[in-house]
Amino acid sequence: MRRLRMGMIGGGPGAFIGPVHRIAAELDREIELVAGVFSSDAGRSRAAADQYLIDPERAYGDLATMLAAEKAREDGIDFVTVVTPNHNHLPSVKAALAAGFPAMSDKPMTATLDEARELAGVVREAGLPYGLTFTYTGYPLVREMRERIAAGALGTLRKVVVEYPQGWLSQPAEGKQAEWRVDPERAGAGGCIGDIGVHAFNLAEFVTGQKVTRLLADLAAVVPGRQLDDDCTVLMRFANGARGVLLASQIEVGELNGHRIRVYGENGGMSWKQEEPNRLTIHHADGRTELVRAGDASLGGLARARTRTPGGHPEGYLEAFANIYRDFAALLRGEQAECLQGVEEGLRGMAFIDTAVRASATEAGWVDLTL
Amino acid sequence: MRRLRMGMIGGGPGAFIGPVHRIAAELDREIELVAGVFSSDAGRSRAAADQYLIDPERAYGDLATMLAAEKAREDGIDFVTVVTPNHNHLPSVKAALAAGFPAMSDKPMTATLDEARELAGVVREAGLPYGLTFTYTGYPLVREMRERIAAGALGTLRKVVVEYPQGWLSQPAEGKQAEWRVDPERAGAGGCIGDIGVHAFNLAEFVTGQKVTRLLADLAAVVPGRQLDDDCTVLMRFANGARGVLLASQIEVGELNGHRIRVYGENGGMSWKQEEPNRLTIHHADGRTELVRAGDASLGGLARARTRTPGGHPEGYLEAFANIYRDFAALLRGEQAECLQGVEEGLRGMAFIDTAVRASATEAGWVDLTL
Amino acid sequence: MRRLRMGMIGGGPGAFIGPVHRIAAELDREIELVAGVFSSDAGRSRAAADQYLIDPERAYGDLATMLAAEKAREDGIDFVTVVTPNHNHLPSVKAALAAGFPAMSDKPMTATLDEARELAGVVREAGLPYGLTFTYTGYPLVREMRERIAAGALGTLRKVVVEYPQGWLSQPAEGKQAEWRVDPERAGAGGCIGDIGVHAFNLAEFVTGQKVTRLLADLAAVVPGRQLDDDCTVLMRFANGARGVLLASQIEVGELNGHRIRVYGENGGMSWKQEEPNRLTIHHADGRTELVRAGDASLGGLARARTRTPGGHPEGYLEAFANIYRDFAALLRGEQAECLQGVEEGLRGMAFIDTAVRASATEAGWVDLTL
Amino acid sequence: MRRLRMGMIGGGPGAFIGPVHRIAAELDREIELVAGVFSSDAGRSRAAADQYLIDPERAYGDLATMLAAEKAREDGIDFVTVVTPNHNHLPSVKAALAAGFPAMSDKPMTATLDEARELAGVVREAGLPYGLTFTYTGYPLVREMRERIAAGALGTLRKVVVEYPQGWLSQPAEGKQAEWRVDPERAGAGGCIGDIGVHAFNLAEFVTGQKVTRLLADLAAVVPGRQLDDDCTVLMRFANGARGVLLASQIEVGELNGHRIRVYGENGGMSWKQEEPNRLTIHHADGRTELVRAGDASLGGLARARTRTPGGHPEGYLEAFANIYRDFAALLRGEQAECLQGVEEGLRGMAFIDTAVRASATEAGWVDLTL
Repeated sequence: MRRLRMGMIGGGPGAFIGPVHRIAAELDREIELVAGVFSSDAGRSRAAADQYLIDPERAYGDLATMLAAEKAREDGIDFVTVVTPNHNHLPSVKAALAAGFPAMSDKPMTATLDEARELAGVVREAGLPYGLTFTYTGYPLVREMRERIAAGALGTLRKVVVEYPQGWLSQPAEGKQAEWRVDPERAGAGGCIGDIGVHAFNLAEFVTGQKVTRLLADLAAVVPGRQLDDDCTVLMRFANGARGVLLASQIEVGELNGHRIRVYGENGGMSWKQEEPNRLTIHHADGRTELVRAGDASLGGLARARTRTPGGHPEGYLEAFANIYRDFAALLRGEQAECLQGVEEGLRGMAFIDTAVRASATEAGWVDLTL
Repeated sequence: MRRLRMGMIGGGPGAFIGPVHRIAAELDREIELVAGVFSSDAGRSRAAADQYLIDPERAYGDLATMLAAEKAREDGIDFVTVVTPNHNHLPSVKAALAAGFPAMSDKPMTATLDEARELAGVVREAGLPYGLTFTYTGYPLVREMRERIAAGALGTLRKVVVEYPQGWLSQPAEGKQAEWRVDPERAGAGGCIGDIGVHAFNLAEFVTGQKVTRLLADLAAVVPGRQLDDDCTVLMRFANGARGVLLASQIEVGELNGHRIRVYGENGGMSWKQEEPNRLTIHHADGRTELVRAGDASLGGLARARTRTPGGHPEGYLEAFANIYRDFAALLRGEQAECLQGVEEGLRGMAFIDTAVRASATEAGWVDLTL
Repeated sequence: MRRLRMGMIGGGPGAFIGPVHRIAAELDREIELVAGVFSSDAGRSRAAADQYLIDPERAYGDLATMLAAEKAREDGIDFVTVVTPNHNHLPSVKAALAAGFPAMSDKPMTATLDEARELAGVVREAGLPYGLTFTYTGYPLVREMRERIAAGALGTLRKVVVEYPQGWLSQPAEGKQAEWRVDPERAGAGGCIGDIGVHAFNLAEFVTGQKVTRLLADLAAVVPGRQLDDDCTVLMRFANGARGVLLASQIEVGELNGHRIRVYGENGGMSWKQEEPNRLTIHHADGRTELVRAGDASLGGLARARTRTPGGHPEGYLEAFANIYRDFAALLRGEQAECLQGVEEGLRGMAFIDTAVRASATEAGWVDLTL
Repeated sequence: MRRLRMGMIGGGPGAFIGPVHRIAAELDREIELVAGVFSSDAGRSRAAADQYLIDPERAYGDLATMLAAEKAREDGIDFVTVVTPNHNHLPSVKAALAAGFPAMSDKPMTATLDEARELAGVVREAGLPYGLTFTYTGYPLVREMRERIAAGALGTLRKVVVEYPQGWLSQPAEGKQAEWRVDPERAGAGGCIGDIGVHAFNLAEFVTGQKVTRLLADLAAVVPGRQLDDDCTVLMRFANGARGVLLASQIEVGELNGHRIRVYGENGGMSWKQEEPNRLTIHHADGRTELVRAGDASLGGLARARTRTPGGHPEGYLEAFANIYRDFAALLRGEQAECLQGVEEGLRGMAFIDTAVRASATEAGWVDLTL
C-alpha cells in the first residue's frame, strides 16, 4: 500500500478550509497533498504551495494545466479535492472527472439544485469515486448513533431535533471567511441554510437512516442589508412519519459551532453535541441514562474503526474530518465506505436548500422535498 | 406583620402539585396553609388535611362551604390558591373572588380561551389580587435575564429559542399525574401545549419583555390513541420583529424537565436552563463569555430579592415556586410585585394555546395572536 | 400526628444560618418554629422574632428563661435547635437536655474535643434524642451513594477523594459571617478544618460506611494575619485499608461551595458534587458510565424517602437540610433515622479536627485518629 | 523552508504512542517521518514501516545502523524521536546526540534520576536541540494560563491543585500498554508517579512558572501483587510559598484521562481540564467568572500561535501533541520555543519521581526537592 496523492483546488492564502482539508487528508498518512490550483492567480497559488510546504512546481494557476500536468507525471495525483466557494464545485469536479480523476468536494454539492442534478449525472456516468465532506458524519460517536439506531436501539423513531447555532455573522461587517458566503453569486441561493443548515439536514438523515419527505421553512436575513438568509428554522417530516425540527443560525451572538442533535424513538433517546464530541448521552427505555464516551469498550465497529487514541484523549474536528478522508481512501482502494457521503446525499442536500429557500420566500407552508 | 392564611382548592391525596404549592407558599413563613377543599369527596379532603398536618375541621368537601365558613372565622383565610385540573380554575376563582377572597391559581388560567376571557372580566371587576404560578418566572436568574435585557444588555432583540422537553408521556399507559392532562374535558383543548408549552411561551415573553404577535404551530399527538397533542413546535414573531422558536414535547424519552431559553440581541446573547438553574451564561458583544452564578455580587435587584442562600448553595424548583408566593404576599400587603404573572399574562397564555391548537389543526400557516 | 414545636438558640439578626434552619425545619410541615433565644440581647432577640414572624412573647433573652417558660406552657416547645457559634454548642445543648428537651445542633459538635467528650457523656446519660446538621448527608443522592456502597456496588473500597473548595475568605477583610469563624475563642482550634473540613470528613465516612483510622494533616493560615487555618489537606486511611484525600480551602478565589466526593472500589466508582446535587455518576465494572438523576426509578429507598418532586425539578441545599430535620422528627416520633448524624459522628468530627490541627502544627506525620 | 525529516526509535507494532508521535509530528507538515528503529526485531521494524507507509528500506533493526545509514544519505533524517519504554531513553538519546542528531523524547526523561543527571550532562555538552513531550503543555489554553499568570492575572500565587485520575490499571490483568509500565526494570522506580504523576508535576510548574521546592509523598501499590505504585498523593510547596496538592491514580475505576489543574492567587483563580480542553474558567477578583474558549479573540499570543481552527471546532490531544513538535521544529530552525520542555524540566521531573518514591517508601515526611 502506498500513500495516495492529492491535488487541491482552492484553499489559497487566507482560506480557513484549505489547511483543514490538508491536515485531515494527511492525518492518517494514507493521503499526501502534492499539488494544487490554490488560486486562479498563479503567484498566489505558489505562495500557498510555500505555506503547505509542497513543491512549488506543482502549484498551478489553472485547473486544466494541473490536470494535464499531473496526468503526465508518473507520480501524479490520484484524485482531486475541491475546497473552493460553492459556485466552483460543479466546473471543478466536472473537469477532474473528465480527466479521469476521482474527486472529493466540500459541501454543499454545488451552488444550485440544477447544478447538482447536472453533477449527479456526470458523476454517475463517470463511474469514478466521488465524496462530500459532510464533516460531522466523521465523528466516531455520530457513527455510533447511526449504528445503534439502525440496530433498533430506540425502536420506531418519533422525533429529531437538530441545531446548528453560530454567532459569527451577527454583525454586517464580515471578514474574509464570510465574504463569499453572503454573496449569492458565489454561495448560491442559500446563506445560513447552505452553509450550515445543510450540515444539520445531512446529520439528521445520516444518524437516523430516515429520509426527510416534507418540510416547512422559515428563513430570514436578520442583519440589515444582508442578501442571503442568516437564520433558519425548518420543520420536517421523515419517511416513517417521525417529526423533525432543524434550527440553524449565524446571528446567535456568542455561539461558536454548537451543532447538536437529539433523536427520540418509542424506546429511548440519544443526544450529542459537536463542541463536546467525545460523549454521547443515551436514555434507555427502563429509565437509565448512559454516558457513552469515545473509546469505551461498548462502542460498535463504526466508531472503533475511526478512533485513534484511548478514551479520555479527546479527538476533535480535525480527526472527524480525517475520518471522511479515510473513507474516501478506502473507497479508492476498492473497500467499502458506507459512511461516506456522495452523490445521493449531496443531491438531497441541494434539494433541501433549494426547497427551503423557495418555500420560505413564498410562505408556502408544508412542501414536499423532491430531488 | 402576620402570616397570611391560605385556603387550598384541589391538591388532594395523590396530587403532586398540592404539596408543592403548600411548601412554596410557606417556605418564607409569610403564608400558612390553614384550610382547604382538597377533594370534592369530604373523606378524601380530610385525609389530605391529615397529610398536610392542618386542622381537620378546616378540610372542607365543597368550595361554597369553605368560603362561607372561613369568612365567618376571625382567623379565616386571607386568600385561596387553586391547584385543580384546568377545567376547575374558572369556577373556583370566580367563587373565591365573589366571596371577597384574592386568588392564586395554577397555570394555565383556564381550560379554554373563552373561559379565560370571562375570568379576565371577573378579575378586573372584582378588583382583587389575582396571580398565576408560572413557576419558572420565579427563578432568580430568570429575573436577572429579564432585568438585564430590559436594561438593554443585548441591544435590540433578534432571536429567542425556548424549549421544554419532557419524556414522561412517551408511553400510552400513564400514571396518576397524567390522567387528567390527556383528557380534553379536564385539560382543555391543549395537551402538551397547555401543560408545558404555555410555560415556555410565558417564559419567552417574561424574559424578553416582548409580546408575541404572530405564530405558526405544528402540534401532534405522537403516541397512538392519544387525543391531545404531546409534541409541539411553534414559530413566533415578536412585536419588535424578533424571531422565536418554541419547542415543547412530552414524548422525548429520557428528558425530565429540560425547560430552557436562549435569547440573542444585536449585542449579545444569554442562555439558562431550569435543570441547572443557578447559572446563567452571558455572551458579550466583545466576545467574552460570562458565567453568572446565583448569589454573585453582580446580580441585580430582582434576583437578589429572591435568593435565600449564599452562592454555591443550590436553590431549586421549590424556591422558585416560593418566590411567586412571595410576590403574591407582597401584593396582598400592598407592595409592588412586578414579576407576578396575572390576568394579562394568563389571557395571553390561553390565547397562545387556543391559537396554536386551531392553527395547527387547520395547517393555517402564520396566524395572528390576538386576545 | 401534630407538628413538633421547635425553639431556636442563636440565629439572630444578620446570621445566615438561622433562617436556613427555620426553613429546613418547617419545609415538610412536621416542625414549627415557635420560640427562640435568638440573641443574648433581649431587644435583638425580639427583632429576630419579628423577622421570623413568631410570637414576640416567645423571643427570650436567655436560655434558662426560655427553657423554663416553654416547659411551663401547654403548647411549649418539643425540642431545641442550636445554631450559635461553636463555643456555645456545649452549654446550650447541656442546658436543654438538663431541662428535658431533645436537641438538634449545628456542626461541629462543640468548639473543642474535650467539650465534645463531655457532651457525649451528657447526651448518653440524658437518653434524649440528639442530632447534628451535617447538611450534606441530607442530599438524596448522597444517601443513594451510601445505600449502593453498603450493598456492595463498588466491591472493596480503595480510594476516596473528598473536596470542599471555597473562596470567600480569600481576603483579610471579612464580613459578618466570617467574623466568629476566624476567631479561636468562638470557633475553636480549627478554622477551615472546623468549618468545612469536618463536613468533608463526615461525608466521606457517611458515604463509605468506613471509619478513618489514621491521618496526616497539612493546614495553613494562608491569608496574612489570620489566626486559624484557611486551607487544609489531609491524607487518610480507612479501617479497611482504603486511602483517602481530603481537600478543604476557603481561599480558592471564585469557588463557592464546591463540596464533592469521589469513591472508588475494586469494581466501580462514583462521583457527586454539591453544586449539581441532582445527578450522580456511576462507573460500572464493565466500563459503562451511568448517570443517575434525582427522581429516577432506579433509586433506592433512602433517596426516594427524601425526595419531594419528580425528576428534573431541582431540589437543593434547603431541601437537603430539611431532610435532616425530617430524620430528627422521625426520631422524636420513635421511628428509625439511620441517616441522622449524632453523638458518635459528632465526636468523630471533633477528634478529626483536633487531631488534624495538632498533627499539622507539629508536622507529626501520620497519626492515629482516636476518640 | 522544507519539511524536517524524523527518525523514530520505538513505536513498533502494538504500541499506542508511536502512531501518536507520528501524527503529531506531521500534523502541521513541518516534519515528516521517514525512518525508524521501530523494534529491535528487524522483521517487526519492517512491519511497522508498512503500517506507517514509509520506505521499508528505512526501517532499521538497530539504532547504530539507522544513525549511520541516515547520516550517509543526502535526504537523511534531521532528528530522532525516542518513544521507547523509559529505560531506553538514555541510551537512545545519547547515541543520537553522539551521531550529531537532535532528539525529541517521550517523558519521563529517563528511568532513573541518575540516568537523568547523566543525560543532562550529555545534552548540555552536545549543544544540540533536545525536547521532551510533556504533552499537556501543548494545549493552547494551558499556555494561556501560563501567559496570564506570568502577566500577574492572579496576583501572588497561593494554591495549586493538580490531578490526574485514571482507572485503566484497576485490575491486575493488564494489556499490552500496561506491561512495561508496571515493570520496574523498564519503567524505573516510579509506576503511576512516573507515568502520569510526572505530567501533573510538570503541568503545575509550567502553568505557574513556580518551582516546587519541598514535597511530602504518599504512594501505594493498591492492586494486589503490583510492584510499582498505582496511586499517589503528593503535597508540595512552591518557591514563593504557594501550597500544592498533586493527586494521580491509575486505579480510579471509570476515570479515563482526567488530568486537570486549578490555580489560585490572591486575586483570582483558574481551572482547566484535559477532557474538555477548549475551555478555561477564570475567576476574577471582582467576583466575575469568565469562560474563555479556544479561539476567543481575548486569547494571548501563545494560544493563538498554536490554534488551527476557529472557536467551536474542537482541537484535542493530537493537536496539543503536535504543538510540542511545532515548538521543536521552530527550535531546529533557530527560532524561540519558550514552551518546549527540555533538560531542565526533564531533570526536575526525574527528581520529583525519585524524591517522591524514596520519601514515600520511608515515610520521610517533608523533604526537599533537589536536582
